[in-house]
Amino acid sequence: MLSKNQQKYLRQLGQKKYRRQHHMFLVQGAKNVLELLQSDHDIDSVFASESFLAQHHQLLGSRLDARHIHQSDEGSLSKVSTLVTNNEVIAVAPMRDVTIQETSWQLALDGVSDPGNLGTLIRLADWYGFSQILLSPNCADPHNPKVISATMGSFTRVSCAIVDLPEYLQQLDKPVYGAFLGGTNVHHVEFAQQGVLVMGSESHGISEAVGQAISERITISGYGGAESLNVAIASGIILDNIKRCSG
Amino acid sequence: MLSKNQQKYLRQLGQKKYRRQHHMFLVQGAKNVLELLQSDHDIDSVFASESFLAQHHQLLGSRLDARHIHQSDEGSLSKVSTLVTNNEVIAVAPMRDVTIQETSWQLALDGVSDPGNLGTLIRLADWYGFSQILLSPNCADPHNPKVISATMGSFTRVSCAIVDLPEYLQQLDKPVYGAFLGGTNVHHVEFAQQGVLVMGSESHGISEAVGQAISERITISGYGGAESLNVAIASGIILDNIKRCSG
Repeated sequence: MLSKNQQKYLRQLGQKKYRRQHHMFLVQGAKNVLELLQSDHDIDSVFASESFLAQHHQLLGSRLDARHIHQSDEGSLSKVSTLVTNNEVIAVAPMRDVTIQETSWQLALDGVSDPGNLGTLIRLADWYGFSQILLSPNCADPHNPKVISATMGSFTRVSCAIVDLPEYLQQLDKPVYGAFLGGTNVHHVEFAQQGVLVMGSESHGISEAVGQAISERITISGYGGAESLNVAIASGIILDNIKRCSG
Repeated sequence: MLSKNQQKYLRQLGQKKYRRQHHMFLVQGAKNVLELLQSDHDIDSVFASESFLAQHHQLLGSRLDARHIHQSDEGSLSKVSTLVTNNEVIAVAPMRDVTIQETSWQLALDGVSDPGNLGTLIRLADWYGFSQILLSPNCADPHNPKVISATMGSFTRVSCAIVDLPEYLQQLDKPVYGAFLGGTNVHHVEFAQQGVLVMGSESHGISEAVGQAISERITISGYGGAESLNVAIASGIILDNIKRCSG
């Protein structure tokens, strides 16, 4: 059972305002919570079904004090959860302080506001070995439960730094690649050994202010009728081309 | 206003059983309906708000007899719609009869059961100029409203043929490429001028029966911690590599 206060607290963390206030966020579903437990990410508390607690007894005990582990039933958990299914466990984790990592290659997102897309992009960044994504302030909140769910655990390895992209990109002395319709075909681009890849939102592309900081405009050639590619797919294709050159 | 019979009919078409029975499917949201109206795809009827009807009066009139155009309010439309927002218009379209197209390159999906992924893959196939995708019978129903919505109009240009993949692939005399963990790095594959790309489900990969028909096992190298890539992203990356060789 969850107490009324616990219910209220967990429901609050579904909203950005309260996540900021408490400096905490929700991790829902077994896959994501197990990734969290196996990572070096701090954990505040876990609310789980009897069977989840029994099955992961040891792992939980190694990471949390018993008084932060709460047994509940799936019915009660699904009432406070933002997921439709997969409600055997919810964890609460403290937000991390994020500083910008000056790695040789960086990925920046400008106005990617769909939480599912952002989560999938975090998972993609993890696949390609990025430990950070730079986000413009109008991207989806990286601690939104839908983002966390879509990362499939990659949120534990990839941090999101919210930055003023035009200002940040302007002062860099490495190439800044941006995806535009009508840029150079990505197959003809010789990517440098270091750089930044900037991807814009699906509906509006890269904003004008960010566009002024782009030194190389690139594009993925289409051959059919679709007007555009999903931003996560487009990012995957360009990152694969970058890895072909630099990896 | 929608009559009770119209409400019932539109609600029924949210379900596969009734789509089969009526041989009709739903197209929801302005973007998808406008693509439908501008395509050569047959249309049975349109239910739309006053403002949508006024704005697209001419286009509608060129494609439909007035008695198949029904005015309704967004409130009534959202009650029968499977979408949360974007309910100014719903169209009903007849299913097409699909025969297999023996194009030089073909894309086949084995057990891709998530409707959002299937819709995104149809949009991706359209981008790369495919006019058809082959589906194993256990893929999501290509006429599921979530699939149609995720195609962003590409359903009008890309047909889905449901086939017995092992049987079909075995009798082909061109290379059959399949995405597996541990196959040849896609950057080292010299793709032929014709072939089939087979992608499996995210959870189970390519099934054993289909696997026996694969002549070339390929993989996308990962560099970080994520266990897998989303199937639509992985397909995008491999199709881009195929186009680099053959396009």
